Amino acid sequence: MALPVAVVQGASRGLGLQFCRHVLSHKGSAALIATCRRPEAAAELRGLAERHPGRVTLLPVDVGSEEQVRAAAREVALRAGKVDLVVNCSAVLHPSGKGETGLREVTAQGVLSTLSTNTVGALLMAKHFAPLLQKGGGGFGLQPALASKRHSGILVNISAKVGSIGDNGLGGWYSYRMSKAALNMATRNLSVELGRGRSKVVCVSLHPGTVNTDLSRPYHRNVPAAQLFSTEQSVDLMMGIIDSLNMDRTGRFYSWDGSELPW
Amino acid sequence: MALPVAVVQGASRGLGLQFCRHVLSHKGSAALIATCRRPEAAAELRGLAERHPGRVTLLPVDVGSEEQVRAAAREVALRAGKVDLVVNCSAVLHPSGKGETGLREVTAQGVLSTLSTNTVGALLMAKHFAPLLQKGGGGFGLQPALASKRHSGILVNISAKVGSIGDNGLGGWYSYRMSKAALNMATRNLSVELGRGRSKVVCVSLHPGTVNTDLSRPYHRNVPAAQLFSTEQSVDLMMGIIDSLNMDRTGRFYSWDGSELPW
Repeated sequence: MALPVAVVQGASRGLGLQFCRHVLSHKGSAALIATCRRPEAAAELRGLAERHPGRVTLLPVDVGSEEQVRAAAREVALRAGKVDLVVNCSAVLHPSGKGETGLREVTAQGVLSTLSTNTVGALLMAKHFAPLLQKGGGGFGLQPALASKRHSGILVNISAKVGSIGDNGLGGWYSYRMSKAALNMATRNLSVELGRGRSKVVCVSLHPGTVNTDLSRPYHRNVPAAQLFSTEQSVDLMMGIIDSLNMDRTGRFYSWDGSELPW
Repeated sequence: MALPVAVVQGASRGLGLQFCRHVLSHKGSAALIATCRRPEAAAELRGLAERHPGRVTLLPVDVGSEEQVRAAAREVALRAGKVDLVVNCSAVLHPSGKGETGLREVTAQGVLSTLSTNTVGALLMAKHFAPLLQKGGGGFGLQPALASKRHSGILVNISAKVGSIGDNGLGGWYSYRMSKAALNMATRNLSVELGRGRSKVVCVSLHPGTVNTDLSRPYHRNVPAAQLFSTEQSVDLMMGIIDSLNMDRTGRFYSWDGSELPW
């Protein structure tokens, strides 16, 4: 049986970098493919790769370029021939760095640029890595006893609770909220398309909690310390969920505590 | 009391054109602002305006251009000073005319172009017409007895049941589904922002049913005739819902039969 292969997209910092650390320290046998826009400039990621010789492949992927996503998938196909887990992490709050507080700050460019990174990027990753996930060995998740219900791979889109339409009572952050709602629709659509046939891929959206990352840091002033996760805490919790996934749980949106969020 | 003013965006054909016909024939006192990309080429709309002299203003709006949306809102501000109802109708299935049947047909350009028309367009309309809706006289909907709960205007985004994430069991149509899920998030966000303060705007998404329009016509082969609405039937039903709206019903997603759809 080939070793499990995990692909972490958006791996240079924040949750993506922590997913890489977690896979290397907690999934002893797994090979890691880590993608980010400029691996040559990702010092922490390069250090991680050096400390785990032979286990990490760094690939350049700007999800705004389908050609780069396609090239990365080709490279992984040549090197590993399959993938067991893809985690899509790249996200921006808004090109300005600040979410819109109201309609007056909404621009077409802001919405489309945010959607391009947060939503289209994850979807292009799914498009080009789906054939590899369908060849996966089911190395992640909780496989059921019944062989016909087993999955070959798992696709995780890091979403956000503010992307829940039903839960939205505060408003604001138009671009980010819309990008995550559209991403959740992509997750759901992918779960249908990749849930058919003999090789099944579990597809979920995960809410990481409120995490201390570059994306959300400007907004932490009003978050009680006990509700603010480190990236370690958030990824530990999300990996716990990933470890519990199978086809009975595909096509859903889970919070860090394992509860299901409304769309 | 000034006469009610209705703005129909995407008025040259399909549901938009029928909304115009309906307002002119069923809302005897209302003035109609009809927008489309090229009013000079919209023969049916021009005919309608000629048959109702003094009631119809045609304005050029390509929702892909914020400058045109802004200019139209300025023009309406000068002519009417307020708006009571905005209905956003413009939509495309996909730039190719066909929804994606699977991942292999997904492209960044297809997703972003569909979102630009279906989602960003409606949001830019909301941005520039919100101040006019806040000056509206509440001429549409069902006003409650309590003055503090009355609305000044109503914003309707024509969405689609295939934009419901929770209802999605079939997959496919990535761009269209994602654009409508993001539009539903916009509706929800708008309902929060425009539900505050003294001048309240009711914001809803409506599912028109499966309607015989240019957008959906290629897909009618498998739809039983009894389930396929004419634009007249669909708009009659949707106007019935609009006539029942007030602030208790804002921020929701209604089907043609008045039932609430899951996000």
